[in-house]
Amino acid sequence: MIEGQSKELSRETHDALKRISTATLTTQLFKRGFRNQFIQGVRRVNQNGPRLVGAAFTLRYIPAREDLDHVGVFQDPEHPQRKSIETVPPGQVLVMDCRGDSAAASAGDILVTRLMVRGAAGLVSDGGLRDFDQIAGMDFPVFCAGPSAPLNLARHHAVDANRPIACGGVAVYPGDVMVGDGDGVVVLPRCLADEVAADGLEQEQLEEFVIEEIRAGKPVHGTYPPNEETMTRYAAWRRKRGTTDGAA
Amino acid sequence: MIEGQSKELSRETHDALKRISTATLTTQLFKRGFRNQFIQGVRRVNQNGPRLVGAAFTLRYIPAREDLDHVGVFQDPEHPQRKSIETVPPGQVLVMDCRGDSAAASAGDILVTRLMVRGAAGLVSDGGLRDFDQIAGMDFPVFCAGPSAPLNLARHHAVDANRPIACGGVAVYPGDVMVGDGDGVVVLPRCLADEVAADGLEQEQLEEFVIEEIRAGKPVHGTYPPNEETMTRYAAWRRKRGTTDGAA
Amino acid sequence: MIEGQSKELSRETHDALKRISTATLTTQLFKRGFRNQFIQGVRRVNQNGPRLVGAAFTLRYIPAREDLDHVGVFQDPEHPQRKSIETVPPGQVLVMDCRGDSAAASAGDILVTRLMVRGAAGLVSDGGLRDFDQIAGMDFPVFCAGPSAPLNLARHHAVDANRPIACGGVAVYPGDVMVGDGDGVVVLPRCLADEVAADGLEQEQLEEFVIEEIRAGKPVHGTYPPNEETMTRYAAWRRKRGTTDGAA
Amino acid sequence: MIEGQSKELSRETHDALKRISTATLTTQLFKRGFRNQFIQGVRRVNQNGPRLVGAAFTLRYIPAREDLDHVGVFQDPEHPQRKSIETVPPGQVLVMDCRGDSAAASAGDILVTRLMVRGAAGLVSDGGLRDFDQIAGMDFPVFCAGPSAPLNLARHHAVDANRPIACGGVAVYPGDVMVGDGDGVVVLPRCLADEVAADGLEQEQLEEFVIEEIRAGKPVHGTYPPNEETMTRYAAWRRKRGTTDGAA
Amino acid sequence: MIEGQSKELSRETHDALKRISTATLTTQLFKRGFRNQFIQGVRRVNQNGPRLVGAAFTLRYIPAREDLDHVGVFQDPEHPQRKSIETVPPGQVLVMDCRGDSAAASAGDILVTRLMVRGAAGLVSDGGLRDFDQIAGMDFPVFCAGPSAPLNLARHHAVDANRPIACGGVAVYPGDVMVGDGDGVVVLPRCLADEVAADGLEQEQLEEFVIEEIRAGKPVHGTYPPNEETMTRYAAWRRKRGTTDGAA
Amino acid sequence: MIEGQSKELSRETHDALKRISTATLTTQLFKRGFRNQFIQGVRRVNQNGPRLVGAAFTLRYIPAREDLDHVGVFQDPEHPQRKSIETVPPGQVLVMDCRGDSAAASAGDILVTRLMVRGAAGLVSDGGLRDFDQIAGMDFPVFCAGPSAPLNLARHHAVDANRPIACGGVAVYPGDVMVGDGDGVVVLPRCLADEVAADGLEQEQLEEFVIEEIRAGKPVHGTYPPNEETMTRYAAWRRKRGTTDGAA
Repeated sequence: MIEGQSKELSRETHDALKRISTATLTTQLFKRGFRNQFIQGVRRVNQNGPRLVGAAFTLRYIPAREDLDHVGVFQDPEHPQRKSIETVPPGQVLVMDCRGDSAAASAGDILVTRLMVRGAAGLVSDGGLRDFDQIAGMDFPVFCAGPSAPLNLARHHAVDANRPIACGGVAVYPGDVMVGDGDGVVVLPRCLADEVAADGLEQEQLEEFVIEEIRAGKPVHGTYPPNEETMTRYAAWRRKRGTTDGAA
Repeated sequence: MIEGQSKELSRETHDALKRISTATLTTQLFKRGFRNQFIQGVRRVNQNGPRLVGAAFTLRYIPAREDLDHVGVFQDPEHPQRKSIETVPPGQVLVMDCRGDSAAASAGDILVTRLMVRGAAGLVSDGGLRDFDQIAGMDFPVFCAGPSAPLNLARHHAVDANRPIACGGVAVYPGDVMVGDGDGVVVLPRCLADEVAADGLEQEQLEEFVIEEIRAGKPVHGTYPPNEETMTRYAAWRRKRGTTDGAA
Repeated sequence: MIEGQSKELSRETHDALKRISTATLTTQLFKRGFRNQFIQGVRRVNQNGPRLVGAAFTLRYIPAREDLDHVGVFQDPEHPQRKSIETVPPGQVLVMDCRGDSAAASAGDILVTRLMVRGAAGLVSDGGLRDFDQIAGMDFPVFCAGPSAPLNLARHHAVDANRPIACGGVAVYPGDVMVGDGDGVVVLPRCLADEVAADGLEQEQLEEFVIEEIRAGKPVHGTYPPNEETMTRYAAWRRKRGTTDGAA
Repeated sequence: MIEGQSKELSRETHDALKRISTATLTTQLFKRGFRNQFIQGVRRVNQNGPRLVGAAFTLRYIPAREDLDHVGVFQDPEHPQRKSIETVPPGQVLVMDCRGDSAAASAGDILVTRLMVRGAAGLVSDGGLRDFDQIAGMDFPVFCAGPSAPLNLARHHAVDANRPIACGGVAVYPGDVMVGDGDGVVVLPRCLADEVAADGLEQEQLEEFVIEEIRAGKPVHGTYPPNEETMTRYAAWRRKRGTTDGAA
Repeated sequence: MIEGQSKELSRETHDALKRISTATLTTQLFKRGFRNQFIQGVRRVNQNGPRLVGAAFTLRYIPAREDLDHVGVFQDPEHPQRKSIETVPPGQVLVMDCRGDSAAASAGDILVTRLMVRGAAGLVSDGGLRDFDQIAGMDFPVFCAGPSAPLNLARHHAVDANRPIACGGVAVYPGDVMVGDGDGVVVLPRCLADEVAADGLEQEQLEEFVIEEIRAGKPVHGTYPPNEETMTRYAAWRRKRGTTDGAA
Repeated sequence: MIEGQSKELSRETHDALKRISTATLTTQLFKRGFRNQFIQGVRRVNQNGPRLVGAAFTLRYIPAREDLDHVGVFQDPEHPQRKSIETVPPGQVLVMDCRGDSAAASAGDILVTRLMVRGAAGLVSDGGLRDFDQIAGMDFPVFCAGPSAPLNLARHHAVDANRPIACGGVAVYPGDVMVGDGDGVVVLPRCLADEVAADGLEQEQLEEFVIEEIRAGKPVHGTYPPNEETMTRYAAWRRKRGTTDGAA
């Protein structure tokens, strides 16, 4: 485990990650030897919602057991699911390990609304969500395996929070940085977030130029990846747009 | 089996179910010990279509066999698929058991149109549907595993109607009540439909209040589930809205 | 294998296929003994994009190997993925065999843009695609297993082009005709394309009439399939619409 | 459906099928256009047990429901599972449709023992079996998806007998002929059983000769399938062994 | 969670469980409302090994990450996998949560040998095991998903011990009682172990009598479940065998 | 692709690989950054057969098509499946890419016998095999997904030989070294075979010593991996057994 890794993202890294696609981030991770940081089987719920960026606050479910998982458990303020909703710090992302089982919900619109009101940065679950249409309409980034009406207690028992978990086949350590867009969610190991954000921003700018070139009829070879000549034109393009403004 | 269970829904139960989410219904069923009434692997085809409510009229498919399943079979007015389209009573839902196999269609736009014209309440299939875009545009509630062009005869042999079936991993007995929304489809055992509708309507109203509270900044604990104080305010809220108007 | 089958589609067949649904085509294929020509697990990316019609130009991936599949490989103009993007002839469809594995992308918006600029007819992949939102916004027919951010090198090694492949469980021979719509993609064996197009166009017209009849209240039996009386009225309907001009 | 197809196998066909491998039978079926008669996901339980041959007597399960499927149901002599055990005629094979779900048992050693005592020809289930070691030790041909301890009521509700079913992805009509060996179970459509048995016996003899030839160093081409010269030697080989003794 | 549940089994319960099949135990659990206590996807490795009985000592894996999971980690005596091998108390069963992923091993013959030498009661993993043949030859009860050569670090990161886990789709709380035989492994909630053992022993004796009756030609109805007459004969049979000494 | 990599294994490497487990080989590969060289979903057919070692000769199947894949194709001596059986060089392993589809056979006992007679080193297929019992009885190493009776033509079309393929999720290049034992099959990239064999042999000897230590009561920590003290005793143990002669 990775005890006590910082959960604070610098403003610079946070803002950069808001502008970098998950595609670019997986390329940056691949270059550093990471091949398995993309959460499988999970999709964006809010088709036009904001991008997801924030440190992971984790919640782990195991399979439900009939005697332990009855509706009475929600009376307990210490119930791990309910407590995690109330304790995830503003700016962080609640990440749920449902063992990829979407036969029941991992949350519904009431809990997601509370998360949003509390200032969380978003929700990622490899299980299902109920009240899917309502959640899809919120201005809040949510990713899950799909709609699923059944009460979480029918399949899931919330067991502990802020421990390392599996989500969609990826290890998620508390404090890792979750970034999500239309392709899905990538998990940035906390120790790499700053450098990946910096290099990713460079890559985004370059690819913005590259796609302009491709639209204008340039062939793939020499353009993507760029050869020296393309890089020279890219340098000119960057100068022309001015210097500090990044990829936006 | 459950021979001869009534297929008539009272107007009151029907109207209540039109206003209750499948999420709420699975909670009501869970409280009564039913954990497996939500059809898995099936989604709404008509994104903005009406909600589905109606008694189940079932059709069962088994795998096709090359000598028995040729296009000539549709000449026969007794062919179970074609006959079921013509005999499902108005207000009922045709529910198809395709063994969860969506490699071929279970119906297409012509048959679905006929169902709609005849006054059926909707269609649920755990197989595929062809002419998906056309069906998605109808004002008729349809749920299936996804689009699939191949002719049903390529995989499915319609064998009998109005027998108990499996659909998406759930037992469906003729006369059970099918309710569908954006989360999917729940199967209400016929014997429970009235009480689940009544209690579900109560739950819907309470949750409408709860979500207002949560939006206004109340914490989950004490609000959901509600403690005594919240219930007192809920009683006031209900009085204020007047009495008979329910959850709508 | 089918060496050297013509890849040229006649204008007539091409235009006919633009007007025939994949549902109709699978029926025509079924009548000829073909039960497995519909690509499974693949869906349309561009919800409102044009229909897909074109001859197949194939690309085959095998699993990646850590020492062979590093970012440096894209410097090589002979890299099979990059080369196939540059060599698929105008009017043809690039079809990728990713072994149905969508854990990584098979391409992204830069390569898809290049394909479009070069005049390819579309893209079909049984793997994932990255930059999904961007691709979904293009006026270019693309079908794949779903969004997936990771770089193709994380899972896929492009090995050869224009060899027979598997795509979504279907054999695709270079030159076979790919047709796609909202239901998905059907593979027409090249040798059948002309006759299937001709008969399919007939079927489309008949079904256009049939659905009008069904909307007007006719029962399935006698209408679909049509009996003699229905065929008589269909003949009149065709005469009334005028000429021989087909289904449009 | 195929109402009233004879369930009586002639002695000749029965004896032939006892000597023909399922591999040979699938080849004979393939030649006649049948590609999907081999039950998928099912294996032999009795490693050294006798081969399975007999007409199908079918039992269908749907998913269990908590209120209907309690241990009390077995008091009812009409319970379909218990009744089918008592009514499958001697010489027939009980074939169970468990929707391929082996998360619970479809039977255990007591019921299998009763089947054996009553003279049934065997058992095929696409679900699990409990008391697997005990059943594996019986001199009785049994095929299933694997061992599974849970009571059938935990997942399965027996609903009707002697109706057409799906088993391991294959249509099984009552009276179809089930044949099983170390490769698994093939379903012979009843109408083809006699001719497939006759031709299969020929094929078995030829392949016995072929494998001798291959062991002696002959190449595949010319031997398998045999060319004229090989057939001449085969004719001699058959004459030498005498005529009536078949493949044994 | 269930903090501090006793892990000590009484000698009586332990001995009873050694004589009760997992089939019988799942029936006892079903009667008490537990439908999901059988570990799915796991099988016995030692075909003729002893039965498994013991309290659960759990180990949890999450997916591996390339920077954290290198061979150097095994130098650390606190590495959770290695430490759990050294700390599972004699008589207890090491139960591993591998998320059902058998693409890599969860242990090999060296660690299993150490477990055996230390007096553990057995091993259950829903992942793979390497050195499968060697483990299969030990006189030690082991259950897993199957053979798998790759080093655990290729897929699995051991994260913590003696926390509630999922194993084969079942919740396992430290101290729950694991029982395994040829059908697989059942998880007895600790609080039920004594009563389930007592009632299970009764059931085993009755079923021993029942199977004798069935072998002797009795029909299922009246025998299984037994009617009053059968129970009278059972009482006599028990008296005749002598004392109260159970099923052995 | 890796054109023209040598297929000749030195005698030393071949003999070493005969004595090294697949578990050890995956560890050696993992240390070199290879995480995905173990063929998934494939098992040993011959429970007591010899170990598999040999260079890969590949055969690729795509899905069958009804018009192309009829029994007549086997008359053609150039049919890729039949030809590969006749051309795989002695000492090499035929490796078949069946897309992991075991619904039909990829070969049967006649072809496997021919392979053996011709001196091939073994067979690996990620599809099924028919005549499973006969093949299991041969003194010839065979690995596949399981028994499957249907003729290969029902699902598979042999398309080309000695091209890079996927087998069980792993890239196999012609000339790569296949090694198989009770855990399954590992694919050694040809360029690594010699060094992996040398280092693997060292590891085998060390683990032989380690397991003796563990059996004698040593703890895991300090023994596995060995600390300095253990290495000293290991050096003595090696000296005592004599020479440099390896692990046997």
